[in-house]
Amino acid sequence: MLGPCSPAQEAAMTFSPPTTAPLDALPATPDYDAWPIEVAIQHVSHTPRQVEVRWEDGRVSRYHSIWLRENAADDSTVNPATRERILDLSRLGAWPTVSEARLDDAGALEIVFAPEQRRLRFHPGWLRAHDYANLDTPEAPLVPTTLWKGSERDAPTTLDAHDWLSADDDPLAPDACLESALEAVIGEGLVRLRNLPTDPGSLDAIARRIGPPRTTNFGTLFDVRAKPDPDSNAYTSIALPPHVDLPTREYQPGLQLLHCLENDTVGGDAVMMDGFAVAEALRERHPEHFATLTRVRWCYANTARTTDHVWFDPMIKLDANGHFDEVRIADFLRGPLMAPFEDVEPAYAALMALQRLLREPEFALRFSYAPGDMVIFDNRRLLHARDAFDVGQGGRRWLQGCYLERDEARSRLRMLRRAHRRQCVDALAHG
Amino acid sequence: MLGPCSPAQEAAMTFSPPTTAPLDALPATPDYDAWPIEVAIQHVSHTPRQVEVRWEDGRVSRYHSIWLRENAADDSTVNPATRERILDLSRLGAWPTVSEARLDDAGALEIVFAPEQRRLRFHPGWLRAHDYANLDTPEAPLVPTTLWKGSERDAPTTLDAHDWLSADDDPLAPDACLESALEAVIGEGLVRLRNLPTDPGSLDAIARRIGPPRTTNFGTLFDVRAKPDPDSNAYTSIALPPHVDLPTREYQPGLQLLHCLENDTVGGDAVMMDGFAVAEALRERHPEHFATLTRVRWCYANTARTTDHVWFDPMIKLDANGHFDEVRIADFLRGPLMAPFEDVEPAYAALMALQRLLREPEFALRFSYAPGDMVIFDNRRLLHARDAFDVGQGGRRWLQGCYLERDEARSRLRMLRRAHRRQCVDALAHG
Repeated sequence: MLGPCSPAQEAAMTFSPPTTAPLDALPATPDYDAWPIEVAIQHVSHTPRQVEVRWEDGRVSRYHSIWLRENAADDSTVNPATRERILDLSRLGAWPTVSEARLDDAGALEIVFAPEQRRLRFHPGWLRAHDYANLDTPEAPLVPTTLWKGSERDAPTTLDAHDWLSADDDPLAPDACLESALEAVIGEGLVRLRNLPTDPGSLDAIARRIGPPRTTNFGTLFDVRAKPDPDSNAYTSIALPPHVDLPTREYQPGLQLLHCLENDTVGGDAVMMDGFAVAEALRERHPEHFATLTRVRWCYANTARTTDHVWFDPMIKLDANGHFDEVRIADFLRGPLMAPFEDVEPAYAALMALQRLLREPEFALRFSYAPGDMVIFDNRRLLHARDAFDVGQGGRRWLQGCYLERDEARSRLRMLRRAHRRQCVDALAHG
Repeated sequence: MLGPCSPAQEAAMTFSPPTTAPLDALPATPDYDAWPIEVAIQHVSHTPRQVEVRWEDGRVSRYHSIWLRENAADDSTVNPATRERILDLSRLGAWPTVSEARLDDAGALEIVFAPEQRRLRFHPGWLRAHDYANLDTPEAPLVPTTLWKGSERDAPTTLDAHDWLSADDDPLAPDACLESALEAVIGEGLVRLRNLPTDPGSLDAIARRIGPPRTTNFGTLFDVRAKPDPDSNAYTSIALPPHVDLPTREYQPGLQLLHCLENDTVGGDAVMMDGFAVAEALRERHPEHFATLTRVRWCYANTARTTDHVWFDPMIKLDANGHFDEVRIADFLRGPLMAPFEDVEPAYAALMALQRLLREPEFALRFSYAPGDMVIFDNRRLLHARDAFDVGQGGRRWLQGCYLERDEARSRLRMLRRAHRRQCVDALAHG
């Protein structure tokens, strides 16, 4: 969790612009965010196509003229009402270049662009935060991914969420519990909240603290309990092997929330494991099987009575940077493999190596649900399983579930961090 | 649109199994689908790991023993209530092999598998439909993609949908209008329906004929009309450049529905173009720029007052088979490019080449909305734009919109085609 101000931000409170002209005289930054000025600009130089900025801490940043021109915040570039871009670069008539570049009296970068001869100013806090020339990883994750094994921990990260529904609705209001929950979900793929209300349907409001639930052919909120005439193995009392939900969908749901309303059954413990950790173990022990599962496209199918979803994808997917993106593991939702003939036996050999790994006890984290508990987990990463449970002695087990997308969690966490930056900017203004 | 029976299916009506044992004595196929027996099996042979099936039309199919074992339809493999797999191959103790394989009296393939010594039967219609060894494209699209230019056509594919909401709710009931609409959306990316009701909110029921709408931070149904305090350029009366919606989301919405309730404004015509056709033109004319736009990951950002969505992706994405998957084109929703320094100038050069193409009149299809019209378009493929419109003379323009996913359309079309197959099977049974 971020503190209200980082040490660099605290230090920035002593920053004074070269003159007394107020920084808020700058044009708005091109978004709704607030960018604390942690370090001031010391010196500016330029060529027609690049501007070099030297900061007071010694860092040197370089920006392309065309990048600067497109990211200006004035009314010729951004619609002031919506903060959305209205500039079309290809209508400028020529590649935008820099005629003049200087540090202005307020500490901002001021540039005159050709061919327009337009004078535009750039906020130093925003420039520093978007210093693309010095970034190791331009797409640094909000929270780093931490792989884990169930054998290394006693329980999921667990938070007391008794005031989850009474928290301030303002998306910029601080909320330590929500922030910690989102960080755990993004970093570890799993968090458990306790002491939530147990009213049926309250999950909708609980979920909307993050974002709107995703409706599927199972509805918006779904009930997980044994029921007659089941349309999914989930709705029986049989054991379920480790799986993700809805790998049959092109857009596999990103987050799953399972909210326990009642549970006095015998058995039926939750079993969760980190699918990325299992995939990493497969890569280490059987690199050829790992490669097969990142390449061969399995068929995921749910040919049900009212819908017919089919999707082809590898069982393990890496993103453009080679990091784990998602797994699609759910034996009971696979249709017939329709791969090139010579891929079929290697694919099944790899599948069985994975199935054997999934049974190793080191990966699984086992815990029970008490009424008022809720887990939020990354459905494209975590595998969940369930022991068979016994409803024969009158025991009842009722979970309600819903789906959200991963990026709703990221958006919500960015809002909470934006709130911290606003606090710092306010502290600077009144410090 | 599929006719009720293909010629091959008609021919199959004369098929007689070798004995009088009924085909419906076979175990259920491993799904809810119906598989007409178009051609009978003539001869079966096997090795331990493969079965060869010779059909009466001369085709030879080969199936791996492990593939057959996993796709059996009996109760040791599939839960009979849910039709979901319960078999875990890795628990069989050894790679499943074939001890015996024969054509049984009902015309089915009967196999005895080791190590289980389990006798299992396979439905010939299902086997023929899943003949992976003879498929050129295992993932053949439901409807082939057809690229188009606005200059080649007068209007979108247009259907009279006056009975859209009075059609039979049964997902297996035939519906020629829905089927044609889905085929146009999947193949061309666009369809226009006319004569729909104009009641505000009726879009929800209209959409649910395909699948459940997707809720976003703009709600489930959104109103497109000029409004005070807009949070998107869409909610102003200014012209909008060609764009997709919500490229800021990891899961960019697949389908967009825009339903016209009122329109007597001057201007504000719809302008749509096939983003895949534009991308194809870029590939032909400027292959280096095309390559850049399939590689460099742009930042898409919507830093709004209550949400903060950011996503990095190429502007043009190809799927694993090298076909167009999606475009993310929306200048007003791009955040600052955060790419490696040396990629920035090539990226902007490619962007401007694309921007110039987007202005060429040959791509755009221009049409007006009448009350009761609705367009359904592939939001990951089609670019939509809008002329500025004039609400000064008291003219009113009110569209309601919502999003669905592409795979809802595919699922719905598969259901309609399943209905055709059922009709064929019924015709065979009573022929």
